[in-house]
Amino acid sequence: MGNCCEGVENFFGRQKNTNIRISLPAVCFVWQIAMIILFGVFIRYDKESDVRKWIEYKKSHNFTSDAENDFYFRYPSFQDVHVMIFVGFGFLMTFLKRYSFSGVGFNFLIAAFGLQWALLMQGWFHTLDPADGKVYIGVENLINADFCVAGSLIAYGALLGKVSPVQLMVVTLFGVTLFAVEEYIILNLLHCRDAGGSMVIHAFGGYYGLAISRVLYRPNLHQSKRLMGSVYHSDIFAMIGTLFLWMFWPSFNSAITNHGDGQHRAVINTYLALASSVLTAVAISSMSQKKGKLDMVHVQNATLAGGVAMGTAAEFMISPYGSLIVGFCCGIISTFGYLFVTPFLEKYLKIQDTCGIHNLHAVPGMLGGFLGAIVAAAASVEVYGKEGLTQTFGFEGNFATRSVLTQGGFQAAGTCVAVAFGLVGGTIVGFILKFPIWGDPADDNCYDDEVYWEVPEDEETLPPVLEYNNHMIHKHQDISESNFSVEQS
Amino acid sequence: MGNCCEGVENFFGRQKNTNIRISLPAVCFVWQIAMIILFGVFIRYDKESDVRKWIEYKKSHNFTSDAENDFYFRYPSFQDVHVMIFVGFGFLMTFLKRYSFSGVGFNFLIAAFGLQWALLMQGWFHTLDPADGKVYIGVENLINADFCVAGSLIAYGALLGKVSPVQLMVVTLFGVTLFAVEEYIILNLLHCRDAGGSMVIHAFGGYYGLAISRVLYRPNLHQSKRLMGSVYHSDIFAMIGTLFLWMFWPSFNSAITNHGDGQHRAVINTYLALASSVLTAVAISSMSQKKGKLDMVHVQNATLAGGVAMGTAAEFMISPYGSLIVGFCCGIISTFGYLFVTPFLEKYLKIQDTCGIHNLHAVPGMLGGFLGAIVAAAASVEVYGKEGLTQTFGFEGNFATRSVLTQGGFQAAGTCVAVAFGLVGGTIVGFILKFPIWGDPADDNCYDDEVYWEVPEDEETLPPVLEYNNHMIHKHQDISESNFSVEQS
Amino acid sequence: MGNCCEGVENFFGRQKNTNIRISLPAVCFVWQIAMIILFGVFIRYDKESDVRKWIEYKKSHNFTSDAENDFYFRYPSFQDVHVMIFVGFGFLMTFLKRYSFSGVGFNFLIAAFGLQWALLMQGWFHTLDPADGKVYIGVENLINADFCVAGSLIAYGALLGKVSPVQLMVVTLFGVTLFAVEEYIILNLLHCRDAGGSMVIHAFGGYYGLAISRVLYRPNLHQSKRLMGSVYHSDIFAMIGTLFLWMFWPSFNSAITNHGDGQHRAVINTYLALASSVLTAVAISSMSQKKGKLDMVHVQNATLAGGVAMGTAAEFMISPYGSLIVGFCCGIISTFGYLFVTPFLEKYLKIQDTCGIHNLHAVPGMLGGFLGAIVAAAASVEVYGKEGLTQTFGFEGNFATRSVLTQGGFQAAGTCVAVAFGLVGGTIVGFILKFPIWGDPADDNCYDDEVYWEVPEDEETLPPVLEYNNHMIHKHQDISESNFSVEQS
Repeated sequence: MGNCCEGVENFFGRQKNTNIRISLPAVCFVWQIAMIILFGVFIRYDKESDVRKWIEYKKSHNFTSDAENDFYFRYPSFQDVHVMIFVGFGFLMTFLKRYSFSGVGFNFLIAAFGLQWALLMQGWFHTLDPADGKVYIGVENLINADFCVAGSLIAYGALLGKVSPVQLMVVTLFGVTLFAVEEYIILNLLHCRDAGGSMVIHAFGGYYGLAISRVLYRPNLHQSKRLMGSVYHSDIFAMIGTLFLWMFWPSFNSAITNHGDGQHRAVINTYLALASSVLTAVAISSMSQKKGKLDMVHVQNATLAGGVAMGTAAEFMISPYGSLIVGFCCGIISTFGYLFVTPFLEKYLKIQDTCGIHNLHAVPGMLGGFLGAIVAAAASVEVYGKEGLTQTFGFEGNFATRSVLTQGGFQAAGTCVAVAFGLVGGTIVGFILKFPIWGDPADDNCYDDEVYWEVPEDEETLPPVLEYNNHMIHKHQDISESNFSVEQS
Repeated sequence: MGNCCEGVENFFGRQKNTNIRISLPAVCFVWQIAMIILFGVFIRYDKESDVRKWIEYKKSHNFTSDAENDFYFRYPSFQDVHVMIFVGFGFLMTFLKRYSFSGVGFNFLIAAFGLQWALLMQGWFHTLDPADGKVYIGVENLINADFCVAGSLIAYGALLGKVSPVQLMVVTLFGVTLFAVEEYIILNLLHCRDAGGSMVIHAFGGYYGLAISRVLYRPNLHQSKRLMGSVYHSDIFAMIGTLFLWMFWPSFNSAITNHGDGQHRAVINTYLALASSVLTAVAISSMSQKKGKLDMVHVQNATLAGGVAMGTAAEFMISPYGSLIVGFCCGIISTFGYLFVTPFLEKYLKIQDTCGIHNLHAVPGMLGGFLGAIVAAAASVEVYGKEGLTQTFGFEGNFATRSVLTQGGFQAAGTCVAVAFGLVGGTIVGFILKFPIWGDPADDNCYDDEVYWEVPEDEETLPPVLEYNNHMIHKHQDISESNFSVEQS
Repeated sequence: MGNCCEGVENFFGRQKNTNIRISLPAVCFVWQIAMIILFGVFIRYDKESDVRKWIEYKKSHNFTSDAENDFYFRYPSFQDVHVMIFVGFGFLMTFLKRYSFSGVGFNFLIAAFGLQWALLMQGWFHTLDPADGKVYIGVENLINADFCVAGSLIAYGALLGKVSPVQLMVVTLFGVTLFAVEEYIILNLLHCRDAGGSMVIHAFGGYYGLAISRVLYRPNLHQSKRLMGSVYHSDIFAMIGTLFLWMFWPSFNSAITNHGDGQHRAVINTYLALASSVLTAVAISSMSQKKGKLDMVHVQNATLAGGVAMGTAAEFMISPYGSLIVGFCCGIISTFGYLFVTPFLEKYLKIQDTCGIHNLHAVPGMLGGFLGAIVAAAASVEVYGKEGLTQTFGFEGNFATRSVLTQGGFQAAGTCVAVAFGLVGGTIVGFILKFPIWGDPADDNCYDDEVYWEVPEDEETLPPVLEYNNHMIHKHQDISESNFSVEQS
């Protein structure tokens, strides 16, 4: 007992103040009121969601049918993306044995927080009407807001278990802001195509999270080692997240591509890449273990790498077998990442990456950006048709004369911009998070829902009670056993 | 052991007859056969789901495309609503430690039971063709049937753990009937708009459940206190319900609004109100606890209040910042309800409300009804356009000359009708449920799946067995420990 | 301890080699590379997913809107089907107490593996362009690939817990191949209609799995009896699978039916049949138990029988009450199957059917096939209209003169073909699986994730650790209890 009691003393000696009773409500209220004011000033329904404007628009375009409303082209995909953001990311982060409340709960909080800011930031940069200074929103803005938030949720994956909800809101606030700026540079100034966000979402979000995690390095994190792993049922909860991400990734990559063939093709490409990366992720997982046993970490994560990597190229004519090759390679790379790179990063680069976002988002996203550059550079009039080339790459207006080779170069440059934004932005945000005011947990208190949640009594206490109950109903009373139960409970 | 044995005797002394072997199958069979006969007499495919009629309809309207079939406007929303009814409501009610089977299972049963009756009842009131006395159904009827059932599922939330499945079927039978009548009064006679059902679904369902719960008040419910709370994993299961409700609520509120801008706008408004109520619910939850810790009950429920409150106004031009304000207020009100009103109701008004439907459905629904009245009364030709005003509020036929102010008054009246129907109907149904024939559980047997389900052996017995197994495969055999295991199992 | 130690020796004596470190990665890699090559040779985007072709197609057909792209008619249904395949089937198979990783994980693996092969096989048989030997794919092919894989996943249901992942890949490889052939015979040569696959998916898949299971009969399977049941939380995980299957079955049966009324009607019929089978399944389940308690096995499975049985007839004018009758009967038949036929099959026919696919897929599928025959034979011009009859049954080209009676006969013949393919194919595949090279588990090692997965440490070890932690934070230190915890952990 001696050691144990010393532990307790030590513990209280080092305990951080994790009380967020003032900071969390303050941030929530101040922020939400700010949002209401800014929305009041800037945000309006667009011509397809405003009743007066839609009636006028239909008349002026001689539409006979409401089916032309963008809503019907995008809403099913939006709902799939929405599921990915809240259930996909949320449940993927429930895998820790005692951090599932925070995994799914804080994901919920920061996504709902971030998407409002994203509507504003992206609106100012992309859909501000210079005539009246208003931002007009429709379903495509909602999809983009979800996308924008995804970058910060990816960063949460690296920080899972080591930060407070207030810190996460700071991460999201800056994450969304940085996202909107890099997206403006990449999509508007460089005129890249990146419908599924290999660059702007995954590469940016991945390196953003890794940089923050580097600055927040905890040398004594091993003190929370007892809570670092999963338990049987938490791994199954995480599979809910994995599967909803996997199934709906075709919608993610096609949600904002061109109507018609664009959405259709992006779905096919993503579907194939994902199928392919399941097989190679499983293969490498099995090969890496003496008895060939599979590792849930790989099945939960590396199987998704194909979807990340197709984020840019999904809408291009990469061809079905090309998609399979992308998934093939990324399944391998991602699983190898979990096996070798994550331990390396922790040991030598002092980057503690709880969910392994390096292997699932940062690297596959960056590779996906460069892949997009290559596929764009290889585009030809024979394959796309002249009109198709214009449509697919948006060679219109200022960019009407751009060649596919130039486009490829800009795509590659865009990838570098995304990575740079992630690294630099993450470093700065990391230092902001080091201020001792955010209520982050102590080193021996990480990965523990107890810190920020009212956790129900242990399940441990349940079975004796139930046993007691069952006894009364079904079973002969065994005196000695009952005694034991009572003592235990 | 003395006390324990006495407990057993007491127990058998007070035990109610919970055997439902005759009553449950009898209700199921009689009812299902009645449904078959009534469907045979009344229900037919409508012009968009009948092959002969659809071909004729297309010809007579010069439609060149099947895309004009209402199916393509409504089916994605229908599927989302369907998920809310079965997974959303079902899993939200799995939060109790030993009542998850009943939570999700009885929800499944009564929803499947109720939707058939709803098709008939709503059909008779709304889509009966007077020419031939038939009810013609299409996808919109399926959505409305799901909506209608939702009212009774809300009531189940108040009764969770305290009633038998046979009682739930009675609740649903009357609930659906009352719903169809109040809906007819509110939507047809008063000509209110209520696409997402703040009034007809949430206010009605909430007060219906509360009134029943009041009549069925159990003064000795504390005898089941051991089973009243959640355990760690049951709270995560409940989050599945919460998230699917939260994500798909925009589809719920837009499922039967006008094509085009109507559906589009309802989605945007609901999305924003929901995001806003997440932040205020979390803020109040954190403020209410000494250390600022969050309470899962609030995160699971109060985050949804914005969606409930937007049920009526979502299709109106409430404007994006208006939606944020609605969510802001309702997140606060709902969380305060869980903190203060639920205990008050139980202590002083003798209303035991297991899931807190008072705070999630009754009050936000009623507020949503009055909100709709205000927004309707404030409508103007400048904002909606003349044609838009007619479309949005249905100022056609008998109601062509109605002003927006009058409309606002009727909306408010409709809300009162819904609340009255809930309270009066629930009181009557409550007394019906007091007959001692329905197999409801004893006071010390509530919240327990054992009463109505074959529950698998405790998880408790699992680990020793596994340990035993693992020993054989992986570990050195420790004699003394193995002995212990064998004894235990 | 004596017996126990002998058990250990026995165990190692009989232990099979379950090391799949070479075989599983080898199959994955070889197969995935083969897929890449074959896709490179054969698979191309079709006219609606290829940018150049879609632009040309739109011009040649004078389409003004991209809404005519088949993507918008089918993609929402595709996503629902996708959820059924991966979450529905996957989570339905998590019900065993220690086989949930394999249930959902191997389902994931073989579905991702099989759908690629399905695209090729079905492409060669159905959509090969003879002009250039290419297969052109779009969203309908993706749906069909998911359908094709479903046959093998159904077979997995019978084999759950008793086979290795390598064996499952063999099952899938042959399963998909046989499926494509029987589908070609049934749909193209016999010209049957089977949009939801009562015949080609469920009857085939069911009997395929049962035949394999018969050949692989394990007389000593009782040695794994300790792992055969469910635990409380695994049953709730399985309900996720059940509900997503149940909710999305209308999309399954309507995904590839005719645009417009065809999809619309298939949804209505399936929705009603499913609702009806919930009630009768629950009724029989309750009747079968002395106290009227419900059995989760029935609720998880037999409630779905109505959807299986409507697979063929859903697109016909079976009328709403007809659908209710189908669900009524199949709910009863399926539950009786679980009660009486599954034990009978195991005892007398030596068929060990883990998930009871006989009762959920084989019999309802076969009945659905014959039902389709009857409904087709009863079709009339009065009900369908002349044009409608042609459209619904495809009485065009070579089949322009076929009568509905003949069609009924062919539908019945098609059902027999499906069953025959399942039985004969399954028997052959069963013998292939008997080669001692596939790494299947020993009889006393079935239903155990430990064999093929890195399973996290028992939850058993969790509570003491947590208790220890909580003590430090919240509670007074009880010396004796803490000693106990330390000893245990």
